Amino acid sequence: MAVYGMLAKFRTEMHVRGHAVSDPTRIEADYLIETTFDPRVAAEAMAGEQSSGTFVPVPGETPELKARSAARIEALDIQDIEIPQPSLPGSVNPKGVTDPIRRQARVTLSWPMDNIGPSLPNLVATVAGNLFELRQFSGLRLDDIRLPATFAEAYPGPKFGVAGTRRLAGVGDLPLIGTIIKPSVGFGPDETAALTRTLCDAGIDFIKDDELQSDGPHCPFDERARAVMRVINDHADRTGKKVMYAFNLTGEIDQMRRRHDLVRDLGGTCIMASLNSVGLVGMIELRRISDLPIHAHRNGWGYLSRAPMLGWSYVAWQKLWRLAGADHMHVNGLQSKFAETDESVITSARACLTPMFHDKPCIAMPVFSSGQSAKQAPGTYAGLGSADLIVTAGGGIMAHPDGPAAGVTGLREAWEATMASVPLDEYARERPALAKALEAYAA
Amino acid sequence: MAVYGMLAKFRTEMHVRGHAVSDPTRIEADYLIETTFDPRVAAEAMAGEQSSGTFVPVPGETPELKARSAARIEALDIQDIEIPQPSLPGSVNPKGVTDPIRRQARVTLSWPMDNIGPSLPNLVATVAGNLFELRQFSGLRLDDIRLPATFAEAYPGPKFGVAGTRRLAGVGDLPLIGTIIKPSVGFGPDETAALTRTLCDAGIDFIKDDELQSDGPHCPFDERARAVMRVINDHADRTGKKVMYAFNLTGEIDQMRRRHDLVRDLGGTCIMASLNSVGLVGMIELRRISDLPIHAHRNGWGYLSRAPMLGWSYVAWQKLWRLAGADHMHVNGLQSKFAETDESVITSARACLTPMFHDKPCIAMPVFSSGQSAKQAPGTYAGLGSADLIVTAGGGIMAHPDGPAAGVTGLREAWEATMASVPLDEYARERPALAKALEAYAA
Repeated sequence: MAVYGMLAKFRTEMHVRGHAVSDPTRIEADYLIETTFDPRVAAEAMAGEQSSGTFVPVPGETPELKARSAARIEALDIQDIEIPQPSLPGSVNPKGVTDPIRRQARVTLSWPMDNIGPSLPNLVATVAGNLFELRQFSGLRLDDIRLPATFAEAYPGPKFGVAGTRRLAGVGDLPLIGTIIKPSVGFGPDETAALTRTLCDAGIDFIKDDELQSDGPHCPFDERARAVMRVINDHADRTGKKVMYAFNLTGEIDQMRRRHDLVRDLGGTCIMASLNSVGLVGMIELRRISDLPIHAHRNGWGYLSRAPMLGWSYVAWQKLWRLAGADHMHVNGLQSKFAETDESVITSARACLTPMFHDKPCIAMPVFSSGQSAKQAPGTYAGLGSADLIVTAGGGIMAHPDGPAAGVTGLREAWEATMASVPLDEYARERPALAKALEAYAA
Repeated sequence: MAVYGMLAKFRTEMHVRGHAVSDPTRIEADYLIETTFDPRVAAEAMAGEQSSGTFVPVPGETPELKARSAARIEALDIQDIEIPQPSLPGSVNPKGVTDPIRRQARVTLSWPMDNIGPSLPNLVATVAGNLFELRQFSGLRLDDIRLPATFAEAYPGPKFGVAGTRRLAGVGDLPLIGTIIKPSVGFGPDETAALTRTLCDAGIDFIKDDELQSDGPHCPFDERARAVMRVINDHADRTGKKVMYAFNLTGEIDQMRRRHDLVRDLGGTCIMASLNSVGLVGMIELRRISDLPIHAHRNGWGYLSRAPMLGWSYVAWQKLWRLAGADHMHVNGLQSKFAETDESVITSARACLTPMFHDKPCIAMPVFSSGQSAKQAPGTYAGLGSADLIVTAGGGIMAHPDGPAAGVTGLREAWEATMASVPLDEYARERPALAKALEAYAA
């Protein structure tokens, strides 16, 4: 468990370092590695694999070519702790070494922009390609990436971000109080619309489809969008408040384009896509064709990150999607039903609110979800230092003892209390919706 | 290490089970899980998270809705081994249990097609979504998926596969003898073309760009394609043999479309894309617009698979890309420079050659690469039981002591010997290219 603690500390430090690249002609990436090799030799193998080298010297790999194209080790910080067991299988020890010492190290590599140009798909192959399979390593994790300003020129970033989302949702300083249609799947269009009506009447700001619900035969996208938007438009006509509904349009390019156009034409104000389903190129294309905020769902994130010495940190990963155009980024939530620590959740959410480039911050609004209810408001606000967020409580609203309307009210009251620095139980004394929420979700 | 052995055995068994789904209206997925909960209770949590459940019961989750939409446990096979340490952090134990037993189990879940319809992007959110983060599990890995025939109707599969690739490359029974342009990056268009000329003259069948080389400023795609195809077309005019060159066009949709059209118009016969860079939707779109075989590179595969109790098995993962249209799928190679075991490589390659559907096999040609040379031919052929493959040797051709031409000759001779059941060293007696290859790459 000491290792996990150390990792959490390390990631927090990485985050605080900020996003500026030291040389505007080079890409930088930070890794945490674990190896029984001399860490510098191992880092050189990484640099070689991801640029001009291969497993043997080849003709043409001249000093001039290497100077032009090779990845460089910019920093190497060896941790002074011996790691008893390899974190991952398949690693080898240096030849002839009988009792090797296994250590972890932080490595920063850099690449010349001339290798790939400002291309997100090719950036991924460069900083997160074959290297995870190298057998010099029993652990290799991408902790951060820093990109030169040419990337900011090549990609649009979020079209709406915090300000655009607040404007469309008509929400001033509080977080957007949101929910997910639950049950996740199983409702048809009419049942979805009926629940939307209940939630609108309860004063909710934001509703999203579940990531499991896109265009199944039992709940076709077009019918759902029409039924839901009739309710939302009717509510807006009566009250002046247009609830933001993130329609999950995850699908192929033509499907997403057609669904987006339908939502826009119906007066909808948000679309949603699953990042690991559409992929980077699907997301880039979606941003190009979209006139609406893009709510980015990260389902599948676990397989990219849950092994502590493998894969991606969220700090590195979220930069790709923000640059590609995601307006809202899922980050789990405090005390969630998932395996992630609260510290990691806060680090992720803060990363979304940290500017990527000096002239182009690409801020995405973090979305807190999974087991969320009124009780997490104070901790979330304290950790994030901002209320520029969306909170989506599914069961935390739908399963409120007095029904969804009380669920919305109780959750908003929790945030009102938090932002007024009033303890929840004090604020709840005169407010039964909050009081019952705190009781119902205490466990 | 016992665990890894067990896993390898398990995966082989899974592979042998084949690809038929038991109920044509349902999707099936097999997982390996690790938990201190009653495995059935834990499996129910997975099924709930990935269908109609959430962390508390919600209104509307009626018995009728569950019958219609809930995921079902189809099989549960608890392993009779206690696992001393959790494979992944973040898991919890059942409440009130002080000394829990941690076990692994194989679970098969199924979902009604009515939840998502035949959509690959939404399939991914369903079978490989949030569940990896559930804290009931200290390990969760997707081992296989089986899809109803409606998926075969909805997606095209490979346009060329083995037969189309052999026809375009003019290669009969042997594997396609191939190489990767090395150094991976650093050559400009003219140097790439000059090396292509050397390799054509040496009689090579197949050349690919490195995955690090797509459209960098130092080697722009269009200039490279024009320079290389001048050489290949000239060689074809003189000899009648058109070498297949997989141009790495990884990029955004419009870029890939334009690059594909250029390659096709220049008379090229193959394009290449990095799967984890373009994503599923990018790949589906590429297949839709492509008139050429698609060479699918899996760089980044390590972060999806290297933790034994997390992520994806290749057996499950490759099905998505084959159905989406990949003609060639990378599988590493025997005795490679990577961490994967030879057994795993062979399991992956055999999966690519195993039909997905009765009427639509979607066979993709496995591509063996990474540290490949003449020496691996017998083991590869013995393991795969087929020569329907592409072998790409980078250093294994380029760094041959007598140069790339001898590298190609030696590698082809190794396969000739193998397919004639002649030991390599015997065949090498009169063949210096093979003899020197065996000596040079013996380590």
